Amino acid sequence: MNGRVTLVGAGPGDPELITRKGLRALADATLVLYDALVAPELLNEAPRARRLYVGKRAGRHAMPQRTIERLLIRYARRGERVVRLKCGDPFVFGRGGEEALALREAGVPFEVVPGVSSAVAAPLAAGIPVTHRAVASGFLCTTGHDVDALRERLGTVLPDSVTLVILMGYRNRAAIARLLLELGYAPDTPAAWVSGATFASQDVKRCTLATLDASSVADRRAVTLVIGRVVELAESLNDARAGSRVSALGAVS
Amino acid sequence: MNGRVTLVGAGPGDPELITRKGLRALADATLVLYDALVAPELLNEAPRARRLYVGKRAGRHAMPQRTIERLLIRYARRGERVVRLKCGDPFVFGRGGEEALALREAGVPFEVVPGVSSAVAAPLAAGIPVTHRAVASGFLCTTGHDVDALRERLGTVLPDSVTLVILMGYRNRAAIARLLLELGYAPDTPAAWVSGATFASQDVKRCTLATLDASSVADRRAVTLVIGRVVELAESLNDARAGSRVSALGAVS
Repeated sequence: MNGRVTLVGAGPGDPELITRKGLRALADATLVLYDALVAPELLNEAPRARRLYVGKRAGRHAMPQRTIERLLIRYARRGERVVRLKCGDPFVFGRGGEEALALREAGVPFEVVPGVSSAVAAPLAAGIPVTHRAVASGFLCTTGHDVDALRERLGTVLPDSVTLVILMGYRNRAAIARLLLELGYAPDTPAAWVSGATFASQDVKRCTLATLDASSVADRRAVTLVIGRVVELAESLNDARAGSRVSALGAVS
Repeated sequence: MNGRVTLVGAGPGDPELITRKGLRALADATLVLYDALVAPELLNEAPRARRLYVGKRAGRHAMPQRTIERLLIRYARRGERVVRLKCGDPFVFGRGGEEALALREAGVPFEVVPGVSSAVAAPLAAGIPVTHRAVASGFLCTTGHDVDALRERLGTVLPDSVTLVILMGYRNRAAIARLLLELGYAPDTPAAWVSGATFASQDVKRCTLATLDASSVADRRAVTLVIGRVVELAESLNDARAGSRVSALGAVS
């Protein structure tokens, strides 16, 4: 059996932000299973491969995780060189660990190629360093789709001690704002929503905890929420008048 | 003035893990300022550029941060296309934010290209997903070079609520272990040291909080400490007998 699976992190959006190793895996693939929000240009990097979309479809549920795992195993056993192309990094909220375990249990050879995670790159693309000397010496990355679980994880984190990066939190934005205020964060704690990070459609909305739930973003599918004093640095770093900007996307302006 | 500076994240080590965008910046560069631990192969990607080493030297202090910033500004003003090549991601403990601010203040056009951060890729390369369903729904990344500051940041994080990723903690390993035990972490909490992650010299040492300070690693310059139940997954994922392994480096075995 020569079949195998490579889990590849596609990066945060911009197809230029995939790794060279990920590109090589695509060039060699005979089959690519890809998620929603993966840049279409990346599929062109796998010219010999058939393509199978396994992400969410409008108005329909995503393919169940177990089905994806069974497909990976089945195609690898048929001798395919399968690339499982995932947004960001496969091991940061990508369920890549589950896929790797399923492959391991099935005895299918696999490899995992890390990617640039949105947890760091979405703030960066908005001009926000998640760590910065004398401002934040750490960052906590978690999800906001379950506010009770979020309460448990954040309930004891000292306000302002680390930058918070919350993925999948847009729908629960009002509850997240209430939670953080309850936990002792100041209402004027700076925050930012970054949607469509590093894509041409990137949209950044600056706010505070007090105005978090009043913000609306252009693209609700991939939204990163950053909370902490580092958000203030974006103002200094992204100043159009100065002809300088931090960007993961555009040319230097 | 056509000079400019691009801060590029070189990724965790393996030169295959730089982004395509980072490679393009190198190909176009006339000058590269690079850190220690950047793979030498990456410098070959900048064939037209002069190279200036600004990292630590054995037995000597690193070049002061302000000196590096002044060099970036001076060379850009002379019209050079400068690449500042940094390990990992420029905005994760890379002082990239400081360099970007200095460039901004000097009116020098710049761009920041994210990279694969060791905070995620070093655990991954050891077979450890920093998040995993029903095991860890978040991760906290911070540094261990100042244990008092670490106490303040971690003092209130609920043990086992998130995966801890601690960079620059090897020298203080005994104090870090004591601190976490004091804070209520169980002595048998799984942990792992990953040194030289994704390089051929990669070395992984599994331990627990109780044995953390007894571990020695092959390469003390770039060591990532991972603490949490996700570390146990490495055993399932990296099983040589099964012919499967998670790796950011090697071919599928």
